[in-house]
Amino acid sequence: MFRQSFHELSVSTRGRGLYEFTDDVEKWIAQNKFREGLLTIFLQHTSASLLIQENASPDVPRDFERFFERLVPDGDEIFEHTLEGDDDMPAHIRTALTTVNLGIPVRNGAMTLGA
Amino acid sequence: MFRQSFHELSVSTRGRGLYEFTDDVEKWIAQNKFREGLLTIFLQHTSASLLIQENASPDVPRDFERFFERLVPDGDEIFEHTLEGDDDMPAHIRTALTTVNLGIPVRNGAMTLGA
Amino acid sequence: MFRQSFHELSVSTRGRGLYEFTDDVEKWIAQNKFREGLLTIFLQHTSASLLIQENASPDVPRDFERFFERLVPDGDEIFEHTLEGDDDMPAHIRTALTTVNLGIPVRNGAMTLGA
Repeated sequence: MFRQSFHELSVSTRGRGLYEFTDDVEKWIAQNKFREGLLTIFLQHTSASLLIQENASPDVPRDFERFFERLVPDGDEIFEHTLEGDDDMPAHIRTALTTVNLGIPVRNGAMTLGA
Repeated sequence: MFRQSFHELSVSTRGRGLYEFTDDVEKWIAQNKFREGLLTIFLQHTSASLLIQENASPDVPRDFERFFERLVPDGDEIFEHTLEGDDDMPAHIRTALTTVNLGIPVRNGAMTLGA
Repeated sequence: MFRQSFHELSVSTRGRGLYEFTDDVEKWIAQNKFREGLLTIFLQHTSASLLIQENASPDVPRDFERFFERLVPDGDEIFEHTLEGDDDMPAHIRTALTTVNLGIPVRNGAMTLGA
């Protein structure tokens, strides 16, 4: 039998950075007793994004941040839309370059993330 | 009961830029009386892409365009594939950097976009 | 009647590059006799990604490679995480800039890719 269920997950943040919420998602899948299906993660923001990455070494998130700071610097003079701050357009562009949506297969009650 | 439905939506364009079609999608959802489910948007092009962004200020799309023009300039000398014009590879690369596919949850008959 | 099916596809690679596996996916759809539905492709890696692109001219993949080499150069001095090689962070960042997940509508037993 096919079932679908929706859940709104809030992730607290303290400034720019990567915030892991894998456990929250796994917990939700377990609570719903989903075994096989498709998990859709959709982020309702245009200045944040979703990333599946290795999170073992703390230097990986730092390297991500340095790369994006160089690619889309805050206060870049090419931006007109600066009313909401000089990090507003950079945040929108980072979002466009990454993604706000993931569809992850679920098998045996867990996301099929890599090993 | 689960239902699925397909629709081909054409969006007319006049050169490079952002073209909003949110209303067309909402209308289609309403016509099909979908209440809860997953909306898949898939773009059948390799030189255009999908973007969820704020569209209140006209300077936001302009800033996007300026950023991508700097990142992947037309006529960039690193490109070999110029047979279809000097904006051909830049368009393919913009597409790769953004996305051609979105999966958006639908609840209460509407896309769950952010506020 | 709704059905879902899972399949793990391995793609052999010999170094960096674009590897086409469209035929393998089409074959799987045909074997499963899927007619209408949603195909989810999910890549279980954080240093590889999925791309839908034209693959007629051999210069297109070369131009992609040249662009990404310039954008995220191997051995870039901004990267701290170099333990696994000077192409490790560049690979993670390429993945973040592109995608590990695609949702492609299937109609009449085939992916609805563009013409």
